[in-house]
Amino acid sequence: MFEKRVLIKDAGHSTGKIVELAGWVHNLRVLSKFSFLILRDRSGTVQCVVDASLFDTRKLNLEDLVILKGKVAEDKRSKIGYEIQTTHIEIVSKAHEQLPILVNKPLQNLNLNLDTILDHRTLSIRQEEISSIFKIQNKLIQSFREYLLKNDFTEIYTPKIVATGTEGGSELFQVKYFERKAYLAQSPQFYKQHMVGAGYERVFETAHVYRAEQHNTSRHLNEYYSLDFEMGFINDETDIMRFEMGLLSYMFSKVREECHKELSLFKYVLPEFKEIPIISLEEACKILLKKFKKDVHGDLDPDSEKLLCEYFDKENGMPLVFVNDYPQSKRPMYAMPHKTKKGLTHSFDLIFNGLEITTGGQRIHNYDMLVQSIASRGLDPESFKDYLEIFKFGMPPHGGLAIGAERITMKVLNLTNIREACFYPRDRIRITP
Amino acid sequence: MFEKRVLIKDAGHSTGKIVELAGWVHNLRVLSKFSFLILRDRSGTVQCVVDASLFDTRKLNLEDLVILKGKVAEDKRSKIGYEIQTTHIEIVSKAHEQLPILVNKPLQNLNLNLDTILDHRTLSIRQEEISSIFKIQNKLIQSFREYLLKNDFTEIYTPKIVATGTEGGSELFQVKYFERKAYLAQSPQFYKQHMVGAGYERVFETAHVYRAEQHNTSRHLNEYYSLDFEMGFINDETDIMRFEMGLLSYMFSKVREECHKELSLFKYVLPEFKEIPIISLEEACKILLKKFKKDVHGDLDPDSEKLLCEYFDKENGMPLVFVNDYPQSKRPMYAMPHKTKKGLTHSFDLIFNGLEITTGGQRIHNYDMLVQSIASRGLDPESFKDYLEIFKFGMPPHGGLAIGAERITMKVLNLTNIREACFYPRDRIRITP
Repeated sequence: MFEKRVLIKDAGHSTGKIVELAGWVHNLRVLSKFSFLILRDRSGTVQCVVDASLFDTRKLNLEDLVILKGKVAEDKRSKIGYEIQTTHIEIVSKAHEQLPILVNKPLQNLNLNLDTILDHRTLSIRQEEISSIFKIQNKLIQSFREYLLKNDFTEIYTPKIVATGTEGGSELFQVKYFERKAYLAQSPQFYKQHMVGAGYERVFETAHVYRAEQHNTSRHLNEYYSLDFEMGFINDETDIMRFEMGLLSYMFSKVREECHKELSLFKYVLPEFKEIPIISLEEACKILLKKFKKDVHGDLDPDSEKLLCEYFDKENGMPLVFVNDYPQSKRPMYAMPHKTKKGLTHSFDLIFNGLEITTGGQRIHNYDMLVQSIASRGLDPESFKDYLEIFKFGMPPHGGLAIGAERITMKVLNLTNIREACFYPRDRIRITP
Repeated sequence: MFEKRVLIKDAGHSTGKIVELAGWVHNLRVLSKFSFLILRDRSGTVQCVVDASLFDTRKLNLEDLVILKGKVAEDKRSKIGYEIQTTHIEIVSKAHEQLPILVNKPLQNLNLNLDTILDHRTLSIRQEEISSIFKIQNKLIQSFREYLLKNDFTEIYTPKIVATGTEGGSELFQVKYFERKAYLAQSPQFYKQHMVGAGYERVFETAHVYRAEQHNTSRHLNEYYSLDFEMGFINDETDIMRFEMGLLSYMFSKVREECHKELSLFKYVLPEFKEIPIISLEEACKILLKKFKKDVHGDLDPDSEKLLCEYFDKENGMPLVFVNDYPQSKRPMYAMPHKTKKGLTHSFDLIFNGLEITTGGQRIHNYDMLVQSIASRGLDPESFKDYLEIFKFGMPPHGGLAIGAERITMKVLNLTNIREACFYPRDRIRITP
């Protein structure tokens, strides 16, 4: 039935000829002698003129799926340069109920609340701006993968059903695993470190991870897509930050180059940079106190992250800043203690447009130091036996990071809620559709 | 510390010069005046000559991580054409316990059982053949993605925490989701159909899926990596099978071209093909009866799959065969009933080297037909409300398939147990490491 189908974007190659298109009725204007039907497929939309004597277009609903044949005629008023003079229409699949969401209008004209968009997720993705979010997210994730493959990283696929947590005992979803309890992985942290030690040296993974966080905010998901990498043979966390500068620069430029149309639907301008400033947490706190009279210690709250980005946006014209030297008490047991600054770690966050989108750092690679760090947290090294093994057999100095895919998408497009950047969000109350 | 590090494979560009290498002590032969140290990094191995006056190599253990500097000297006896005349050795990270697995010998000389390999997974991956399994698996997955992107597919990331099963109620792992029960996704089936209907038309996903199957066999995992795609605007399942022929042909040729060294460690020869034979289940049963005196009905058991591949290997010199026309009773409620053959479906399996590696088919796209199919299984259409919505709004005819990444790796390399093709397998009894 679809053997001769051509995509709308390719119909222009056949000016003067009959083509067969297939897609959805995006819009319809019925006049007395003819109708204007806007047909949509994955490649775009085109105006099709339908003579009243050919087909009674009043039988059509918006979003009906049709096969439409017609002659491709040059049309200089059209954005794509041609229209279709319809010779045949056939309904393949009816839209037989009233649409809960209109998908042929700009989002701001639809006045939809987020729950409506998410409840009717599949339909809402037919709307251009909403669909564009995911095209841009795709490009971000693809270019993450491309950059790492180019840099000799190996992709890994590590288990999400695990026996113990990596980041501490709370915030774990419990799975009934036959007669036993298991958990959903909070991150691939242990496994990616293992794979560095297994000899791959540089590894990455893109996969869902799970956090049983009780709070329901505009920037948290309980299941999110994590872009993780880990690399061996580093000196300290600055190697990881420098690498991320190149990585993000590549990802952003790919979005700019290949998602130009999608990006133009959003007002926000994606920052261009060669360097991202690096400040210590102590310096960040000083700026907050001096510029905003805000007294912060030990970690940055969401409000501080916002103020800090505003400050750097004003200073550098770019709302991106690395913060490093976090205290040990705020970082997991595997974080490398700072070589010279007592109580601090070789770890960092990257804050983008007011939100932490990356956490990373150097990890402990020395077996004895790691055992001691585990014990100093009141944890039992024996319960980390599997994790610890490779550290006995020549573990290289290493570090890495994780970027939340939904968070970076949210900030690249300046969306207000992280759920907008997730196909099917899972939060404190939502597990459908 | 590693700023000047070069990879072993690149050292040959610096003949006559001093280079800095870093890696693991792969092998060591201590003679009275000097030692031969084989150094290994992610790019390969190289022989380093260490003068006894420079460093007491008796202090070194196998798998110690060292920085080694030395002059690159041409050596025609060496496979890579050069050796290193060592001028400096520094231990970065000690291997301070006896190795539970030797990693510098061919696998057949090590006489390891599978549990030992899996218990010490990270270490075992340092062994060349074991590491090669995953390099080949990587290439299979990467080329799956490449081929689909080239064919205008959109990558999707769908939730693994779900409210209901897709393939029927059993075999679901239950998750404690705050106050509620949720489940781990058995497949992205409903979501990938949704994304076709959402207007992407062609989508794919590579991710873990979960089956709470009680049996512990050499070909089942409870968490496996599924290579899924779904495409709209098809006529029937033959479009999907033809597409898979091109896809697999591409994947196999990429492995042959880019994993030549890794592939050479395994005896099995990867089949080359342009076409894969397609037979109906009825024809398959006839062959089994006629050639093997085996009386099979309704579905193929593992033994039948083996015999059938043996037969086609003999007939066509290629152990791959599609079997289609499965009965409705053996397929899920979304399988498209056969247009002309009553009680059968437009579905198929692909059997490779005696094992089903793909299940696929055309799906029902008509809302009423789907509701009826759900009800005919004794299920309540109301509980599939979210799934059903898009079928009311112009769903294109569509179909797709899933390939088990571990299964195809297993068959490409003729491994005996699927666990060999999984970084960290999860089965009836194993959830560590």
